Amino acid sequence: MMTLILNNEEIEKILTMEACLEVLEHLYREYGQGRTVDLPRSDAVVPSSTDYTVYALKTMSGCVPYFGKAAIRLNSDTIQHPTIDGIKRRVKVPAASGGKWVGLVLLFDMNSGEPVAIFPDGVVQRMRVAATNGLGAKYLSRKDSRILALIGSGWQAGSQAMAFSAVRDLKEIRVYSPNKEHRESFCKEMEPKLKVKMIPATSTAMAIDEADIIASATSSMVPVLKKEWLKPGIHVSAIKVQEVSWEVITGCNVFFLHSNRFLKQTNYLMESEKRSYIEVEKGWWVEKAEEILVNKRFPDLGDLVTGKFPGRTSADQTTGFLNSLGLGIQFAAVGAKVYEMALEKGLGREIPTDWFLETVHP
Amino acid sequence: MMTLILNNEEIEKILTMEACLEVLEHLYREYGQGRTVDLPRSDAVVPSSTDYTVYALKTMSGCVPYFGKAAIRLNSDTIQHPTIDGIKRRVKVPAASGGKWVGLVLLFDMNSGEPVAIFPDGVVQRMRVAATNGLGAKYLSRKDSRILALIGSGWQAGSQAMAFSAVRDLKEIRVYSPNKEHRESFCKEMEPKLKVKMIPATSTAMAIDEADIIASATSSMVPVLKKEWLKPGIHVSAIKVQEVSWEVITGCNVFFLHSNRFLKQTNYLMESEKRSYIEVEKGWWVEKAEEILVNKRFPDLGDLVTGKFPGRTSADQTTGFLNSLGLGIQFAAVGAKVYEMALEKGLGREIPTDWFLETVHP
Repeated sequence: MMTLILNNEEIEKILTMEACLEVLEHLYREYGQGRTVDLPRSDAVVPSSTDYTVYALKTMSGCVPYFGKAAIRLNSDTIQHPTIDGIKRRVKVPAASGGKWVGLVLLFDMNSGEPVAIFPDGVVQRMRVAATNGLGAKYLSRKDSRILALIGSGWQAGSQAMAFSAVRDLKEIRVYSPNKEHRESFCKEMEPKLKVKMIPATSTAMAIDEADIIASATSSMVPVLKKEWLKPGIHVSAIKVQEVSWEVITGCNVFFLHSNRFLKQTNYLMESEKRSYIEVEKGWWVEKAEEILVNKRFPDLGDLVTGKFPGRTSADQTTGFLNSLGLGIQFAAVGAKVYEMALEKGLGREIPTDWFLETVHP
Repeated sequence: MMTLILNNEEIEKILTMEACLEVLEHLYREYGQGRTVDLPRSDAVVPSSTDYTVYALKTMSGCVPYFGKAAIRLNSDTIQHPTIDGIKRRVKVPAASGGKWVGLVLLFDMNSGEPVAIFPDGVVQRMRVAATNGLGAKYLSRKDSRILALIGSGWQAGSQAMAFSAVRDLKEIRVYSPNKEHRESFCKEMEPKLKVKMIPATSTAMAIDEADIIASATSSMVPVLKKEWLKPGIHVSAIKVQEVSWEVITGCNVFFLHSNRFLKQTNYLMESEKRSYIEVEKGWWVEKAEEILVNKRFPDLGDLVTGKFPGRTSADQTTGFLNSLGLGIQFAAVGAKVYEMALEKGLGREIPTDWFLETVHP
């Protein structure tokens, strides 16, 4: 047996947004019926040798019997928290050789237990985040949604635009980001790819005016979406808890979380004298954890895809979706698909699986 | 940069029990002072295609700034729970190609974030379990301990014998195991290695008679150590919670846990109709979790090594040590040592680290 090593370029070639949406729709059907298991995201955070920098080892894992695969997704990160354009952000520093990052997916076959593939997480990571918000919009936004307001013009914003374009027949995407150059180059780059008119907006007001869907895809650590934006018929979408306030969540007629079983990652901070500069995050998700996790105040994407809870039932409802926390099962599902397609196309390099096996009882 | 791939044979060659004890003593000094971070062991358990078999993906991780290393230890297991010799056991089936198991350690450098080494967990796993109980005995057993009673004759029992021999000047080890053939071949095999007289015992009574230290190292899911064995001056040692009852723990004058911050692994069981045959474990550790984790009724190995809590203070005390739960930081510490020694000796195979890096923001 051989273990397949893939890179991001190869994965980008084979993993279309349509394939990703399809495999995740299957996944959430399984998840919604309780046929998957997740080890929730946990971050071990310790001070780095450099001041105001932390090292964080992050893992999330999951088993999806439907695909016969399990996955571990890991990140070995150097992180800083600078204030950029007046907003506090979380920035991963590319500290590895050649100015690179370290993020990996290890894919296992559930019958043999063998690691069948290892690949960087970057492309899969953004595709599954986007497809998750895309599925939210597919089940919640108005079918006749034509204008998307996109807050953010980074790496995640690009794939979010792809996902919303795949589930709705958009005619226009208006992009706001505080940096003029970023939003303009983003629109210029994405327009030919999406075949949708892209308009850089000079303010959030300009971006959201006439929008049917408002989506934030930022690295902001403070709320981005505003309550006054919740006009009848709108769908709002966020990629992380910090982008959205409790008022927006409870202000929607219909609101779904990605998962209502887990909320935010578990952080394990080093108990040292140096930890003072690692601010322990505060937000509605701390205060409302019991309401969400125990009382299940909001249904989740599993409930939505299986029809256990209805999505939008009328055109004038306001709907919302929060991609509250990534799940390891996403990497098992999308990883299974990537592996299958890579084998078909003969992509990647191989190393002997036997290097990762042992005759010694573990 | 290259990432080093090692196998168990290479690790066995370089990792002596003495080196393992030394590196772990450093580790527990750091741990006891709150200068390490652990992601506790979590198991994602799902029914396998075969009846009464489960697939389990297990991870534990940790960062140890003192060694500049972080590690993820993972197991991708096929598990059955048969009754053998009248005792219910947990058996890992070697389901991978060639009848092998899948357990790996991924070692990361905290400065660059890069994966510097990947190796199977088998040898490191049993060495660190044994060295942990060995450190317990070094700080808790009587310095003049001469006779060790060992319950169990499996893979873990062998390394336990090595660890106790390394910290105490033993003249005799009496081994009990229900299977005559096993205990006899075990003694025959271990005697020349340890240069200590090994006696197969036909009963636990024969094994523990005159013993200064009683150690269990079994796969038993029911208590092995008995309260009536707690004679003045004895030290008792267990490698997992199931082997020891609450009565034994509270019956000792002095009792230390490996860790009082975590207790037993977290299990995430699939919520399917099939789960009925996965028995959710019951035991004192469920009932006493608050007393241990919140009230810190027992100190742990970090407290012992740093001297925050005294160990044995008189020859007639009964002392006990329970290796309650493995920690990811053990793999970071022992892994750092293994990596350093393997580089020195030029052992292992290399693959380009660049295969595991990415230019895409994860």
